Amino acid sequence: MQIAIVLFDRFTALDAVGPYEMLSRTPGAETVLVAERPGPVRNETGSLALTADRALADVPAPDVVIVPGGPGQSAQMDNEVLLDWLRTADTTSTWTTSVCSGSLLLAAAGLLTGRRATSHWLALDLLRTYGADPTGERVVTDGKYVTAAGVSSGIDMGLTLLGRIAGDTHAQAVQLLTEYDPQPPYDAGSPLKAPAELVEEFRTGSRFTLT
Amino acid sequence: MQIAIVLFDRFTALDAVGPYEMLSRTPGAETVLVAERPGPVRNETGSLALTADRALADVPAPDVVIVPGGPGQSAQMDNEVLLDWLRTADTTSTWTTSVCSGSLLLAAAGLLTGRRATSHWLALDLLRTYGADPTGERVVTDGKYVTAAGVSSGIDMGLTLLGRIAGDTHAQAVQLLTEYDPQPPYDAGSPLKAPAELVEEFRTGSRFTLT
Repeated sequence: MQIAIVLFDRFTALDAVGPYEMLSRTPGAETVLVAERPGPVRNETGSLALTADRALADVPAPDVVIVPGGPGQSAQMDNEVLLDWLRTADTTSTWTTSVCSGSLLLAAAGLLTGRRATSHWLALDLLRTYGADPTGERVVTDGKYVTAAGVSSGIDMGLTLLGRIAGDTHAQAVQLLTEYDPQPPYDAGSPLKAPAELVEEFRTGSRFTLT
Repeated sequence: MQIAIVLFDRFTALDAVGPYEMLSRTPGAETVLVAERPGPVRNETGSLALTADRALADVPAPDVVIVPGGPGQSAQMDNEVLLDWLRTADTTSTWTTSVCSGSLLLAAAGLLTGRRATSHWLALDLLRTYGADPTGERVVTDGKYVTAAGVSSGIDMGLTLLGRIAGDTHAQAVQLLTEYDPQPPYDAGSPLKAPAELVEEFRTGSRFTLT
């Protein structure tokens, strides 16, 4: 089994590393970080680089595809090299997945048309314009397509998928190994829970924009 | 403000990237990944490399020090270059922190003697032999020393510390941005919650060893 995690300029680091930490522990699987060209790929702030060990062209038929999101996603929406690779990889993949705004790339490739899917909460409306049926759930499975909400939700997606691939006991072992017993010091992790004025600042773009 | 995240061969990726994703969003702060030598540093499986952009020697006085853990930690316990750097950085740091078995490196440097601290649940007994006072909490603050339990707990540590540095509202904004509203599909993330036979397999080393 081969698991491919796609990198692109200005991706969000945790989008990639969350599911990596869970799924790279799949027995018998090879996990490979891929990008259009091999080499270091910088995240959104530029202060972190993950190495893409292989070019997309050298990993044509992974069993599991994971597409992270991040501010750099918008610049990839018309990158036909990436979109073509996603379409081709999807023809043979067992699971095609995304974290955060990575689902917009799957949707731009035409892979989520008519499917239930999710994305970063600020990107759900945009996801609909690409033909998907957005939901507010944290991890959404529709057939072989598994999409996760924003950034940290990739950990939940990875662990969920690990259970499907390697069984509940192995997934629980990885949860125990990684002490994934979260205890956030605040309860502001979704627009339904965060202070309303903070949500409004995000929606109006005064605090942060997705691109 | 300068935040330094220390890398070494066979570190655990999420140990570093969890707190990175939270703390690199500190207003006005520079976050830098450092290692004994600059360049790509491979994680425990070898399938992921993060780039150390600077050498330890070039970052002598960070305000925040973050030491991840991972199977490679044991090989660093007598690396005097790293331990000396930790001691020196600690003389001027505002916060000296660790994730997972990274606390063993802080302890080996003599920085946790007599202090309340934590580590990966499998490493708590070993942490005591290095002079610290281990606790079962997920994030432990003793003065300027903040230690986190295994792997994923670095996210909770990072968000906690972000609140101390940048205020509760900013920390909540980052929690909302990263949708850190965890919903693990299992409840096996601590030895108190996981199936007893799984915990026993870890304790006897039949499923996994820390080194």
